[in-house]
Amino acid sequence: MRLLREHDCGDVLFAGRVARPRFSEINVDAKAVLLLPRVVSAARKGDDALLRALVDILDAEGFRSVGIAEAAPGLLVPDGVLGQRKPDLDNERDIARGVKVVRRLGALDVGQAAIICDGLVLAVEAAEGTDAMILRAAGLPESVRGAAGRRQGVLVKALKPRQDGKTDLPVIGIQTVENAARAGLAGIAVEAARTLIVSRDAVVDAADAAGLFLLGFAASAYPD
Amino acid sequence: MRLLREHDCGDVLFAGRVARPRFSEINVDAKAVLLLPRVVSAARKGDDALLRALVDILDAEGFRSVGIAEAAPGLLVPDGVLGQRKPDLDNERDIARGVKVVRRLGALDVGQAAIICDGLVLAVEAAEGTDAMILRAAGLPESVRGAAGRRQGVLVKALKPRQDGKTDLPVIGIQTVENAARAGLAGIAVEAARTLIVSRDAVVDAADAAGLFLLGFAASAYPD
Repeated sequence: MRLLREHDCGDVLFAGRVARPRFSEINVDAKAVLLLPRVVSAARKGDDALLRALVDILDAEGFRSVGIAEAAPGLLVPDGVLGQRKPDLDNERDIARGVKVVRRLGALDVGQAAIICDGLVLAVEAAEGTDAMILRAAGLPESVRGAAGRRQGVLVKALKPRQDGKTDLPVIGIQTVENAARAGLAGIAVEAARTLIVSRDAVVDAADAAGLFLLGFAASAYPD
Repeated sequence: MRLLREHDCGDVLFAGRVARPRFSEINVDAKAVLLLPRVVSAARKGDDALLRALVDILDAEGFRSVGIAEAAPGLLVPDGVLGQRKPDLDNERDIARGVKVVRRLGALDVGQAAIICDGLVLAVEAAEGTDAMILRAAGLPESVRGAAGRRQGVLVKALKPRQDGKTDLPVIGIQTVENAARAGLAGIAVEAARTLIVSRDAVVDAADAAGLFLLGFAASAYPD
């Protein structure tokens, strides 16, 4: 906060990846000593709770937290199919189940992503992150997943129900497509307008080249 | 079923680990052709649905399916602490959160286990199985998990809410304790009377030697 004020920053936008610190090893000044208990207590509830506590603290200090949707709406996944492929009926069914699983997990502040293949939940994201989760699915026996010649299964990512969309939006990029291709998946379905896509053209090209669909779905398409 | 009848078997007990087959590659006789669609459709809903379909088919053919609780009650985890260590207050809190997460997952027929460390859900089990899940937690940064000198976090396993307890009971064994120790966990909490413990004495000794607690909890201790 001192640095922000020194540089006359009024708006704050959260971006990038942060590793959870060990709070007992953080050096704190007099102000942070007072704030830390609240942060530590929020951290115990999950990433979403932790980030909301940080945003609240900055707000109370007079900073304005800005979401990606406001600052760079062009980075958000639009509604609809992005590349050449479309999900088929099997994929649609996997997406519907995936949305349900991801919502329940998100409500518990566990993770934002899951992989469903022919109805079966192959993998569910917690602290390891999406890439590690996809690679895990790639390591499962071929009998339960797809492969390059016969792609099957879907990666679903969505915002946690309680998230306000200002921090920790789901993200996809080239790596996501490459890993999904390696896991034999048929495609990727993410919540439209609330998921970031980094290097969009390159990501769509990669998905087309690998034969994967890329779908932005409206949350309202899957009522609970 | 032909083999069972040839050998005059009336009771059937499901035990051991089964890899999901690729159903399109199974050779079926005239009878199985009629049953397969039902099995495939159940398989799409999850392991629990699949196993219940198989039990129902055997029941309809006049076989009696027997649960472990009936055939070998001594293999079940009893209520209470099994070894020398007891969960502390932090562990108790992690257990409570873990039970909640595992129940929600189980209700979706996703998995039976999760790892919680200081409130944070480190890992959640889907198709990869419990051992792979624990080893994944062992690979997370040390800032979010425990270690040998300062054990923290709990593995929680429980039956899926819809399971009848006849098939696919949660299981723990030496491997579970060894992996949990490697992941820096403080202990293992499983649903009493509905979890199998293989080589109980050896498992308790291993937990004591590693400094882990082993707890069988009553489901009623954690009302939803």
